[in-house]
This record gives sequence, structure tokens and C-alpha cells, in this order.
Amino acid sequence: MAHIFLDAMGGDNAPKSTVFGAVEALRENKELKITLAGIEEEIRPLLQDCADVMDRITVLHTPDVITNHDAPVMAVRQKKQSAIVLGMLALKEGTADGFVSSGSTGAVLAGGMFRLGRLEGVDRPALAPLLPNGKDFFCLIDCGANVDCLPAYLPQFGVMGSAYMQMMRGLKNPRVGLVNIGAENEKGNALTKEAFPLMQEAPFNFVGNVEGRDITADVADVVVCDGFCGNLILKFMEGVSTTLLGMIKREMMADTRSKLGALMAKPAFRRVKKAMNYEEVGGAPLLGVKGVVVKAHGSSNAHAIACAIRQAVTMYEKKLPENIQSGINELLSRAE
Amino acid sequence: MAHIFLDAMGGDNAPKSTVFGAVEALRENKELKITLAGIEEEIRPLLQDCADVMDRITVLHTPDVITNHDAPVMAVRQKKQSAIVLGMLALKEGTADGFVSSGSTGAVLAGGMFRLGRLEGVDRPALAPLLPNGKDFFCLIDCGANVDCLPAYLPQFGVMGSAYMQMMRGLKNPRVGLVNIGAENEKGNALTKEAFPLMQEAPFNFVGNVEGRDITADVADVVVCDGFCGNLILKFMEGVSTTLLGMIKREMMADTRSKLGALMAKPAFRRVKKAMNYEEVGGAPLLGVKGVVVKAHGSSNAHAIACAIRQAVTMYEKKLPENIQSGINELLSRAE
Repeated sequence: MAHIFLDAMGGDNAPKSTVFGAVEALRENKELKITLAGIEEEIRPLLQDCADVMDRITVLHTPDVITNHDAPVMAVRQKKQSAIVLGMLALKEGTADGFVSSGSTGAVLAGGMFRLGRLEGVDRPALAPLLPNGKDFFCLIDCGANVDCLPAYLPQFGVMGSAYMQMMRGLKNPRVGLVNIGAENEKGNALTKEAFPLMQEAPFNFVGNVEGRDITADVADVVVCDGFCGNLILKFMEGVSTTLLGMIKREMMADTRSKLGALMAKPAFRRVKKAMNYEEVGGAPLLGVKGVVVKAHGSSNAHAIACAIRQAVTMYEKKLPENIQSGINELLSRAE
Repeated sequence: MAHIFLDAMGGDNAPKSTVFGAVEALRENKELKITLAGIEEEIRPLLQDCADVMDRITVLHTPDVITNHDAPVMAVRQKKQSAIVLGMLALKEGTADGFVSSGSTGAVLAGGMFRLGRLEGVDRPALAPLLPNGKDFFCLIDCGANVDCLPAYLPQFGVMGSAYMQMMRGLKNPRVGLVNIGAENEKGNALTKEAFPLMQEAPFNFVGNVEGRDITADVADVVVCDGFCGNLILKFMEGVSTTLLGMIKREMMADTRSKLGALMAKPAFRRVKKAMNYEEVGGAPLLGVKGVVVKAHGSSNAHAIACAIRQAVTMYEKKLPENIQSGINELLSRAE
């Protein structure tokens, strides 16, 4: 039975979203137990109608709460009785199989680095959400954990992302691309120019540079970049989609004929919206640490939390950290 | 009378696009003369039906042609009888008022740097296209001229972009934002963290950090970043729009009801497409050099070339380089 440790206090809608998300996940998967870590008196009242799963829930009272206003590294050092710190320690000790939080990204990163620890040979753990490209999903790594990167980090990100797509999406030989400003090998800034030959030597299916216009064109399953560019890509994708859909909506409401057209095309728009919705695929895994960590979106509702829990269970069952460790070992042995 | 020097051989559709674009521009503006620089025997036959504007056209035979396959710096050093080199020299000598090319971006940059020269105090000239945000256009600077930037370059880009938006779009006090991964002042990578206080001290209306999701949300008129991120933004915007519109189209063709809706909503989609079309606003100006230089898109058709020529004329008439020089002088005097 998998055991997920859930930060019940993290996120805009916590603890309602987290508690209800946990219950949804437990009802869906009978081979699952969950520790709800947070302020007990806020959690208990939400569990009134959950008798059917109560035997698989543990409420752990954690008096410290880490918020988005806390300085992350300081917070995981000082707030020892917080869900994030206790969750990371439970992973480390092997008493939990996965940790899920929709709280402070910085604190999850700091907790992963300093309380749980990195896999051997991993310089920097990275955040790796799945994003839609219209046909399927690609893994963007790193999307913000490491804003300044050394070239050697990037092939490590490639190994992690490749293992993730193999284990989680069943791809045999995921295509790994490097975000760059030109398709030619010699293009790039100082970072990507130095990283390119390292990517070529690495133990994954490197397909070369990926330009901005091709990121969503299904040319790579794993899109590697530094965390600054990754964060830009993640948020700009949201921004451009919102702007474009807003324009279409506005124009469709501007004349009667188009208005009628919009009404008729509603099912089509619903399908597009669904394909763009990445809630179902869970949160962003923190890869490269010694355990299963999923960072769900801060605005997650209960269903998104349930999806993130399901994702953490799969990561545990597929032995993702162990697989990443093998890949990193192979990468390092090639570099010797 | 303004005199534009046009690289007649640059671009995917040259010399047809360039020659016909020049003729369109000349017919529209009687106070304009154009030098068509390129292979004379390819240009002349295209001018058969242009008797009405022939007195304002000079065909300059330039035996050297710089292509996208040439190494840019080497090309502007060796191919002295090319349109790009001769155009830059004509600007420098004051025999031309503006230069337009849809040829090799690298060669235009190299020509601008080494044949024309930078304005005093400008470390790096930058490319600054206008991009749509649904309501209006914003200036993205730098979009690829400088892939590795020092912090001091970014406030210079802000000065250039601000002057451009004042002169060309009539904005009184353009809002200048810094592309970053968080809204808070202290966020960022090494580059943006160091650049932030310099932006605060600079002589323009700095509105702070702009996250990816807000770039197209009309929060800044000038969006400043290094050329790597700028190129990523430029091309990713195209990529996401293409993917999203492709998905909508596909879903609208998937059932009869939506198909009918699509048919009725055609005028709305046409308006969206028009609002997203940045051909009308011309090419990307190369700002920070001692003259008016416009780099049009490689795939420009005749109309896009005519728009780029019109843009170069306005830049010249509004004395854009002189205005940028004043801004840079002010920036430098504040830093002292």
C-alpha cells in the first residue's frame, strides 16, 4: 500500500482543496493511505463525511506553517514542525512513499535540497511539469528551480526528463531537445553552446536544438532549458493562450453572425479547453531528489490535488527516483 | 525628400518582393526616392511597368551578395560590393537616410556594428520588433542581436525602446518592463537582479518586472530582455498561436454543428488574424546605431517591404537616432 504525505495547508484553497483532494484520491485507489499534515483543528471538521476512508487517513498536527511570504531556505531550517519539513524527513526515513504540496514552491525546493537531499551525482534538482502541445504533452525541465545554470546541469535535466516520460507516459525513447535560438548546432548563448556537445554525449535520444516556434510543435517530448527560460515558457504559454482566446471571444461577440457561430461552435471550444487543461496530468514533479516529490499548482482545487496524489503514487510504483539514479550514473560514467 | 537604400537581394522572395515593395512605397509617398541595390540584371526586368516612379529609383549594381549561409562578420568584411555593406556606408556618409533589408539578420547586425557604427555610449545595438497584445503593440527589445548580455545593456535597451515608442507610436510616457520570473523586485537570475536597480535609475517610465503571463497583457509598452529570451518570446509567441489556432480549427471541423459555427464566425476569425498581423507595422528596427536601419522578415512579401520602407522613412523624419542619443546621454549622466 502506497503512503502519500500531503501538505494539507499549502495552496490558495487549502485545507479544503487538500483534504477533499485526499478523500477523492483515497476513494479512487483502495491501495493508498494518506497523511494529512497541517493544523489539526482546521483539518478535522472537513473530514465529517469521510467515514469510508478514515481508516486510511492519518491527521498529523504540524504547528508550523510555511507560507509564500517566508524566505524558503530559512523557513525549512527554522520551521521544523511544518508539513514540508516533516514530509521530506518522512520520505528520507522511508516512512512515506511520496510527498505532495501545493504550497510555496521555494520551500518545496529548499526542503527537497536540504531536508531530503539530492540523488548521487545530481547537481540541481529540477521542476518538470507536463505541458500540452495540441497532440500530447511534453515535459518542460527546468521550469524555475534553477534560474542560473551551468552547462553540466542541462544533460542531467535531460536524463531526468527522459526517465520521467518513459515511466509516466510510456514512451520508449523520448526525444530530448534543447531550447535554443536556432536549429543549427553551433547556435546559442554561452550556456547552450557549451551544453550542446554534453547533450550529444548523454544517454538519451537527443534531437538537437528546439526553437521557440517548435516547442509546441511536437518535435521533442522533453524540452530542456535553464529555469529562467523554463519559467518564461511556462507562464508565457499561459499568457499568449489567454490573450488569443480573449481576442477570439471578443471578436465573436462583436457581430450577430459571429455570435451565433460561437454558440454553435461551443462543443469545439470545450474540447480545445479540455486538451489545454493540464490539471489531469498532475503537478510538477521535483526530479533529482531522493524520493517522490510533486509540487501542485498553488491554485489547485480538490480534483487537481487528487490528480497530483495519483501522479505521486505512479512515480513511486514505477520507481522513478531509482530510474533517474541509473540514468545519472550512466551519464557520469560516459563523462569520465 | 527622404532617400531609402534598399537591399534588393535579401529575403526569400527577393528581388521580386523588394522591387515591387519599393514601387508600392514610391507610389504611396511622392517625397521618397529609393536606391535598389543588387544584381542589376535581375532587378531591371522587374521595373518594366514602373515608368511613373522611375525618376525616383536608382538601380545600384552590387556584384557581391550576402546570403544566410555566409558567416556574418566575415561577410561584411569581405563582401564590400554588397548591398548591406554599401547601404551602411551610404548611411554613414549621409547619402542615404535609411536602410532596409530582409536579408541575413546576422549580416545586418554586423554591418550596423562595424560599417555604420554605434551611437556614443551604446554598448550593443538591439533589434526591437513590435508585437501584438490584443489591444495594441508592444516593443520587444532585444529580440536576438545580443544573446549574452551584461546588466548595463538592459537600461540602454529601455532607453532605445522608449524613444522608439514615443516617436513611432506617439506614446507620451511609454511603460518599460523587465522580463522576469516574478513580480517582486528581488526576483530573477543573475542578469535581471543586477539590471533591476539600473532600470530604476534610468530616464524612462520603469514599471518593474513583467512575468511571462503578463507580456501580452498590455502591462508594458516596452518589454526589455536579453536577446536569447527575446528570441524565445518572439518565436514561442508564433508557435503557441499556431498550435492553438490549429487546435481550434481541427476541433471546429470535427462535427457538423461546429463546422457550421466556424463558417458563421469567419469574419470574427478574420479580424483576429488581422489584429495579430504585425506586417503593417513594418520590420524590426536595429536601434542604437548611427542611422536608420530596418530588418524586415525574411519571408516578407512586397507589401511587407513597402511597410518597412514607410517605417524607415518615419524613423528618419522623427530623428529617431538623435532622440536615442539624447536618452543615452541622459542615462550615462545619471550613472556618473
